[in-house]
Amino acid sequence: MTSGPFSFPMKDLYITDLTRFENQQVTGFFVASAKQFRAKKDSSRYLAVNLADRTGQIECRMWDASEVGDFNNGDVIKVKGLVCRYQEKLQINLDKIRLAAPGEYDLADFVPHTVRSIDEMWAELNGFVDSFSNVHLKALLRAFLDDQEIAGALRHAPAAKALHHAWIGGLLEHIVSLLGLCELTAKHYPEIDRDLLMTAAVLHDIGKLRELSWGTSFDYTLEGQLVGHISIGVAMVESKIAQLDSFPQDLRILVLHLILSHHGKYEFGSPKLPMIPEAVLFNYLDDLDAKMQTMRSEFARAEAAGKAPDQMTDWVRAMERPLLNTNGLLKR
Amino acid sequence: MTSGPFSFPMKDLYITDLTRFENQQVTGFFVASAKQFRAKKDSSRYLAVNLADRTGQIECRMWDASEVGDFNNGDVIKVKGLVCRYQEKLQINLDKIRLAAPGEYDLADFVPHTVRSIDEMWAELNGFVDSFSNVHLKALLRAFLDDQEIAGALRHAPAAKALHHAWIGGLLEHIVSLLGLCELTAKHYPEIDRDLLMTAAVLHDIGKLRELSWGTSFDYTLEGQLVGHISIGVAMVESKIAQLDSFPQDLRILVLHLILSHHGKYEFGSPKLPMIPEAVLFNYLDDLDAKMQTMRSEFARAEAAGKAPDQMTDWVRAMERPLLNTNGLLKR
Amino acid sequence: MTSGPFSFPMKDLYITDLTRFENQQVTGFFVASAKQFRAKKDSSRYLAVNLADRTGQIECRMWDASEVGDFNNGDVIKVKGLVCRYQEKLQINLDKIRLAAPGEYDLADFVPHTVRSIDEMWAELNGFVDSFSNVHLKALLRAFLDDQEIAGALRHAPAAKALHHAWIGGLLEHIVSLLGLCELTAKHYPEIDRDLLMTAAVLHDIGKLRELSWGTSFDYTLEGQLVGHISIGVAMVESKIAQLDSFPQDLRILVLHLILSHHGKYEFGSPKLPMIPEAVLFNYLDDLDAKMQTMRSEFARAEAAGKAPDQMTDWVRAMERPLLNTNGLLKR
Amino acid sequence: MTSGPFSFPMKDLYITDLTRFENQQVTGFFVASAKQFRAKKDSSRYLAVNLADRTGQIECRMWDASEVGDFNNGDVIKVKGLVCRYQEKLQINLDKIRLAAPGEYDLADFVPHTVRSIDEMWAELNGFVDSFSNVHLKALLRAFLDDQEIAGALRHAPAAKALHHAWIGGLLEHIVSLLGLCELTAKHYPEIDRDLLMTAAVLHDIGKLRELSWGTSFDYTLEGQLVGHISIGVAMVESKIAQLDSFPQDLRILVLHLILSHHGKYEFGSPKLPMIPEAVLFNYLDDLDAKMQTMRSEFARAEAAGKAPDQMTDWVRAMERPLLNTNGLLKR
Amino acid sequence: MTSGPFSFPMKDLYITDLTRFENQQVTGFFVASAKQFRAKKDSSRYLAVNLADRTGQIECRMWDASEVGDFNNGDVIKVKGLVCRYQEKLQINLDKIRLAAPGEYDLADFVPHTVRSIDEMWAELNGFVDSFSNVHLKALLRAFLDDQEIAGALRHAPAAKALHHAWIGGLLEHIVSLLGLCELTAKHYPEIDRDLLMTAAVLHDIGKLRELSWGTSFDYTLEGQLVGHISIGVAMVESKIAQLDSFPQDLRILVLHLILSHHGKYEFGSPKLPMIPEAVLFNYLDDLDAKMQTMRSEFARAEAAGKAPDQMTDWVRAMERPLLNTNGLLKR
Amino acid sequence: MTSGPFSFPMKDLYITDLTRFENQQVTGFFVASAKQFRAKKDSSRYLAVNLADRTGQIECRMWDASEVGDFNNGDVIKVKGLVCRYQEKLQINLDKIRLAAPGEYDLADFVPHTVRSIDEMWAELNGFVDSFSNVHLKALLRAFLDDQEIAGALRHAPAAKALHHAWIGGLLEHIVSLLGLCELTAKHYPEIDRDLLMTAAVLHDIGKLRELSWGTSFDYTLEGQLVGHISIGVAMVESKIAQLDSFPQDLRILVLHLILSHHGKYEFGSPKLPMIPEAVLFNYLDDLDAKMQTMRSEFARAEAAGKAPDQMTDWVRAMERPLLNTNGLLKR
Repeated sequence: MTSGPFSFPMKDLYITDLTRFENQQVTGFFVASAKQFRAKKDSSRYLAVNLADRTGQIECRMWDASEVGDFNNGDVIKVKGLVCRYQEKLQINLDKIRLAAPGEYDLADFVPHTVRSIDEMWAELNGFVDSFSNVHLKALLRAFLDDQEIAGALRHAPAAKALHHAWIGGLLEHIVSLLGLCELTAKHYPEIDRDLLMTAAVLHDIGKLRELSWGTSFDYTLEGQLVGHISIGVAMVESKIAQLDSFPQDLRILVLHLILSHHGKYEFGSPKLPMIPEAVLFNYLDDLDAKMQTMRSEFARAEAAGKAPDQMTDWVRAMERPLLNTNGLLKR
Repeated sequence: MTSGPFSFPMKDLYITDLTRFENQQVTGFFVASAKQFRAKKDSSRYLAVNLADRTGQIECRMWDASEVGDFNNGDVIKVKGLVCRYQEKLQINLDKIRLAAPGEYDLADFVPHTVRSIDEMWAELNGFVDSFSNVHLKALLRAFLDDQEIAGALRHAPAAKALHHAWIGGLLEHIVSLLGLCELTAKHYPEIDRDLLMTAAVLHDIGKLRELSWGTSFDYTLEGQLVGHISIGVAMVESKIAQLDSFPQDLRILVLHLILSHHGKYEFGSPKLPMIPEAVLFNYLDDLDAKMQTMRSEFARAEAAGKAPDQMTDWVRAMERPLLNTNGLLKR
Repeated sequence: MTSGPFSFPMKDLYITDLTRFENQQVTGFFVASAKQFRAKKDSSRYLAVNLADRTGQIECRMWDASEVGDFNNGDVIKVKGLVCRYQEKLQINLDKIRLAAPGEYDLADFVPHTVRSIDEMWAELNGFVDSFSNVHLKALLRAFLDDQEIAGALRHAPAAKALHHAWIGGLLEHIVSLLGLCELTAKHYPEIDRDLLMTAAVLHDIGKLRELSWGTSFDYTLEGQLVGHISIGVAMVESKIAQLDSFPQDLRILVLHLILSHHGKYEFGSPKLPMIPEAVLFNYLDDLDAKMQTMRSEFARAEAAGKAPDQMTDWVRAMERPLLNTNGLLKR
Repeated sequence: MTSGPFSFPMKDLYITDLTRFENQQVTGFFVASAKQFRAKKDSSRYLAVNLADRTGQIECRMWDASEVGDFNNGDVIKVKGLVCRYQEKLQINLDKIRLAAPGEYDLADFVPHTVRSIDEMWAELNGFVDSFSNVHLKALLRAFLDDQEIAGALRHAPAAKALHHAWIGGLLEHIVSLLGLCELTAKHYPEIDRDLLMTAAVLHDIGKLRELSWGTSFDYTLEGQLVGHISIGVAMVESKIAQLDSFPQDLRILVLHLILSHHGKYEFGSPKLPMIPEAVLFNYLDDLDAKMQTMRSEFARAEAAGKAPDQMTDWVRAMERPLLNTNGLLKR
Repeated sequence: MTSGPFSFPMKDLYITDLTRFENQQVTGFFVASAKQFRAKKDSSRYLAVNLADRTGQIECRMWDASEVGDFNNGDVIKVKGLVCRYQEKLQINLDKIRLAAPGEYDLADFVPHTVRSIDEMWAELNGFVDSFSNVHLKALLRAFLDDQEIAGALRHAPAAKALHHAWIGGLLEHIVSLLGLCELTAKHYPEIDRDLLMTAAVLHDIGKLRELSWGTSFDYTLEGQLVGHISIGVAMVESKIAQLDSFPQDLRILVLHLILSHHGKYEFGSPKLPMIPEAVLFNYLDDLDAKMQTMRSEFARAEAAGKAPDQMTDWVRAMERPLLNTNGLLKR
Repeated sequence: MTSGPFSFPMKDLYITDLTRFENQQVTGFFVASAKQFRAKKDSSRYLAVNLADRTGQIECRMWDASEVGDFNNGDVIKVKGLVCRYQEKLQINLDKIRLAAPGEYDLADFVPHTVRSIDEMWAELNGFVDSFSNVHLKALLRAFLDDQEIAGALRHAPAAKALHHAWIGGLLEHIVSLLGLCELTAKHYPEIDRDLLMTAAVLHDIGKLRELSWGTSFDYTLEGQLVGHISIGVAMVESKIAQLDSFPQDLRILVLHLILSHHGKYEFGSPKLPMIPEAVLFNYLDDLDAKMQTMRSEFARAEAAGKAPDQMTDWVRAMERPLLNTNGLLKR
């Protein structure tokens, strides 16, 4: 996990810049992956490695394997080499490689991150919690937000490995968007307990802090694979409640139920169906917010791939259909 | 379909009042159903008929069948008879029956109806339409709302035969609730075209005006059964658009798409999946509003059946689970 | 929950005995349910109530409601009355009712219970745990079995509200049967970690101690409905592990995974699919043992209903098919 | 859409002929697609483009991009170049490219088309309609067939973008085959209304005239994607009926129902299940005729790929199984 | 199983006639079922038994149990008694009961049977077989039809216990209807091997001769339940082929495949999907013919229940939808 | 099928050895597949062929096609050539090819085979059968095991084409493992008929002897594709029983039922669901043994691919999840 941003040196060279440097020497910091030694015809060996940052990835070769320093997949390394083209694709023939020092780079340059300000979103989140009238729920959420380890993670965690909000700060961005929706819909449906609904927004994915790891790439932890964020989240909430004075038993059951049921269906990994109004409503909001973000990403991807704004996207697997950006169509 | 309310005489006696009149003579207006002549031991015949109003239903007998006047199932009749108890259930032994005259009763007394003011909701609906900035969509909706036949039906239609909002004015109530949700969520997601979304709210179920009949009971029409409200609605919109000047072709396709996809899944009868952001969002709002109303009805039913407010309801078939009213639980 | 058995007075009269007492006075202890006051023709009231014990249930009436003492559904009461027949069914016309005192009855007479000795099964369970070579898993299980509150509940809990092993001691009986299967199959598949597999057998349903209540009838608790035995069990294990010294983190994840995945499929309420050999194997054993018990019960029910041993049972809903007892067929 | 056939020059050279011209100069007309300019090592650019006709497709290069004339994907172009082999695949190195003039080619040479005579099938279709005894249905179908725009499209439309009958004239071929089946089965089942059944055969896919576009390739229109051929067809029928005198309302509902239900299941995009005998029967015939054609295509494809006639085909995705041509097997 | 018809005495009195005999003495032959002795208040016993024939069923009582002769459920008995009405339903108070002698009744009067002539249908079936040009298939079918035991059963077997064609002669009626469809469609699709397709029509359900029993009621045999008509049929065909000279191996596999795949889907009990054109086609024809017959039965049932010919039927469970008789609608 | 092992010459060179011979001449025996002649630039032809043995596969070229001798895909050939590297992959440029003589090789070297001794497993199987107390079942199994053709096949057949136990001797290995499980579980559940259960273990997949072919590769036979091992097995058992004296009819039905139901679900190709305790139990054991073997194979494959023992495998398609080897994890 990263700590506070803004204190690191700017990254000079991104993968997407490399097209401008064909046949030139370049120097830069990248994350290594798929490191492999392969045999040459003369039985000596060369290094094949992929370099990546948050803008993309490139295949590289270092022909003199004896010069390769000590590094592992996932490490940030500093490299120097010649950008050239092989079988119509760019690659870098590396001359030098060394492990980057911790202070030389900002992790945020290597993985995608939110376009919103984390500090602003964090303030927004705290503002919502401060507005609670239910003292027990406010105390529970403060116990999470005032826990420095959790707060540090919550400011940076992605909301997913690969689907919606899969970037640094994505979980926080998703939570804050949901809190806005909760505010609006709780007014529309007066039978809804606003604080309970908002508690679901803050805690429903809290287990992702331990389900996912987000260093130079996003991945599942062993606990994430075998236990999953829903059950991890339940355990985290049980643990915090155990430290609070006189948290009502019924309220505890309701909060756990909101986490357990937020995927809405058994086949989506929820061991309980939503059985209270707040759980039914929250399941819709959570799913909706994810889908809205998925559509934004797909429209951006289609545009990047050269589709006209009034064309349908290709088949979107996550939604099992192609999509159409209404804005593009209405403007033509 | 009913015309304007408030001009009819008050109904004096409701089915739910009858327990107070056991062993007494009563007179009142009710809707007839399940009318049948049965043989007595002496081979003469008697009449068996059910009488109903919006509060319930009761089995009745008229032992002298020769006195039975001319009426059909679905007619409102005026009856006189003795309330008695047979095999632990109340019934009325009828002495007199006659067909009620049109001016003698208010249809609204015989079927469930909304607790909100229809005039107020109608004004709210018109207010939303007046706020449109898209002149084409505004013109389309005005074409519907200014059509006296449609307006008359839309003020009274139920939203369903038996599930959510199954009462006079239910469709209008559902539309107005959706328009409120559209206003809120269109602000939350700036990529959403507010007027297009609201057009879906007004028109998505417009085909129910011809799918359902709502006289003294709610039922499907033949067209409703064999064509269905989605396709009827599409035809109604096509017909109105054909009368408008220069309605843009692309916009026409989007409006039709919103109607066709609003059930969200093929297996729910939508021949198209939502493929534009407004359709994706609207499907969530429509489904959510129906579920919130279903929960309200189920909690009311459970309370009427004597459940404590902090108890789970029985199995709710429409949602395939039991439900729990959070309010009841949190107050204990 | 009941405490130690064998110290209570024998129950003299069971529901199944009543056919021998038609038109006679009887006295006995039963559990009350469906208590209701109904109006008589003369507007006075009478009591309608169902009486039950572990052999069955009967409808009763007490015509003089003023004599009805103070009791609630679920209470054990002592009654005196006349067994008679009304519309071809037996009922009791009650003369006297009073609440039973705690010492007057054995709860076990009112709910079905295991035919095996609880003490023997408890010893068997402890013997298996003593045989563990993995000190961490042995310590974890001892923490459960040595917890007096848990042990007391575990000796009596049913394994289900209505399906397989739905009787007092049923959960323990199911666990002990599974431990036997674990012993056998762990030998057959040497890659299986026997102690880990047996830990699953003991803990997989431990959450049922809080999911179910078993007084005079079996029911779900609120926590059972909204949280469920899988998540309750996870929390109970997390809590016990937190009190142990140096329980290995990976082992903790594996134990939690075994509980979370033991239903084998998402649609059966498991939020995780079995991903380790012990979890895959355990899911088969658990499901198999439940099905074998279901078949035993169905064959007993069919026999009780007068089916010949070589006839198929009626449709068995829990297995979506009729069944045939091979033993009966092979002997003919 | 194409206009009348037979007036265009013969195409001299097809993609499948090119193997005979390796290392020779060729000249011919083809449809362009995937047109792209790519950078050469010396930073100048070359053209990469695919050329196709109804027999197949080939990758081409034009190394001097400055000679590339003005054309778009989908255009028919005349090219001259050298057929050569690169990495074991044929390609053409182009010397000259120019846009073809409308009179120089027959569109039918560039897309697959029916092997039957369109004029003969058209006459057959009209013969069936002339045989109707139901004057209303005959008038409705004549309104379609006498509409020059519709008739022109109906003579050439494919029945699908990619599955069964995906060729010029495919829809007409499918309709005529269905009419034959309707004639036979209406005799077998006397309760069937022959004219109503045949009306379904003619109109069930009429919306495909606007769902698909078939110029130099087959594709979905925007209306096709967002509205779909079922709903388009319903609107087309409503529009024609509105222009007819006194078309019976019930008959109108039945015709719409036949179109709406012809896919037979919700999950196949039918918003209504077949509820009348003609709809149930027609759904079987439509599905059967498509499957029979799919099998013919798959056997032809397997034979082209060198399978022996008595061998099973590879996995056929559209039917989720491999297939076997009985004829081939029985002859061995 | 019955042998030749027409040699038995006419049945004089049917269940449906009894309404005309209220309060009169009647005498007649009926099938007994649900025979039971029950206790009277004075502890003596009375007989309760249901009597049935192919037109319906009635509850009966014989108050003096000592007079009840020896008979079992399923037996045809001759009874004498008084038709009276109890709680608005007719019943017979029996005075005399005796077992009917084999020659006194025609089994066909007690179970529903085809309205077509069995002899005519048998001739039709043999005519189709005689028309075969494939000598092997003709020999195979003759081996079945010339087997007296099989022929006797095939002339009378129902096609199902409760669904379509559930009457004596129903299987033969279904086969003959299918043969007609085979003739028609084999002409329409020239790639179809007519004799092979017709072999499927004759043999696909041949296992029902051992799956079902049809004495005085229709039921499953043990072999029917545990093995099923598909596998029984395969074994019967294997057995007949083993007795034929030089039946080609490939043809044997195709015939077995047609039987195994005729239900079309795994979930309908076919262990193989149709993989040859004849199997694909036959699955449609078989399913279609069953559905057409189901619709006929449902329309007859609705009419019997008093529905108007232009009304939708109630929900038809076998087809999961209500149905509408087009004929009724078009005539109004 | 192979005959007795141990009499063939050792294979000297395996595919996996070739990396040690880069740029060297090699000679060896391999199975040919994908034999194809391709055109060279000068219009002469060269041979492309794949060579395989049980350790892997390699692409080869023979540039002088005139030297290619006569052989077909599936034949074992002896080749001589130079191992070289083309586009980073090894291939052999062949100089000589000739068909291998039957005595020159052991088929077992060319396809994967069990690591257990076939003779030992065969003895184990016979031991189990000798222990039967049910004389009919013992006679039935002896009829199979004493049939030399069946015994020869059963000793070598794989249990599948590609999934679990897909190697020579795999079916026997699977049977023997199941017999062990049957012994254990029949003791645990005393209501189980041990001999009947074991009969299922031996015969459930007996139809695979004709469903699969296993020469130099594993494949489906035509009968396997169109009839399937379940129905083939049923026919084989029917045939053997027909030759036995007085095999009880009910027992015959039970044995057939065990085969027909052993896949446990319709969608897995079982035309009958397990309806007797032995069938229910056997379905679990069969599925379990397959899954345990699948996991072993997947862990071996992951290890071969360089995964650490405590890492999750990649997605395992046959089980629709990734897997984790507990042993690896617990040892870290």
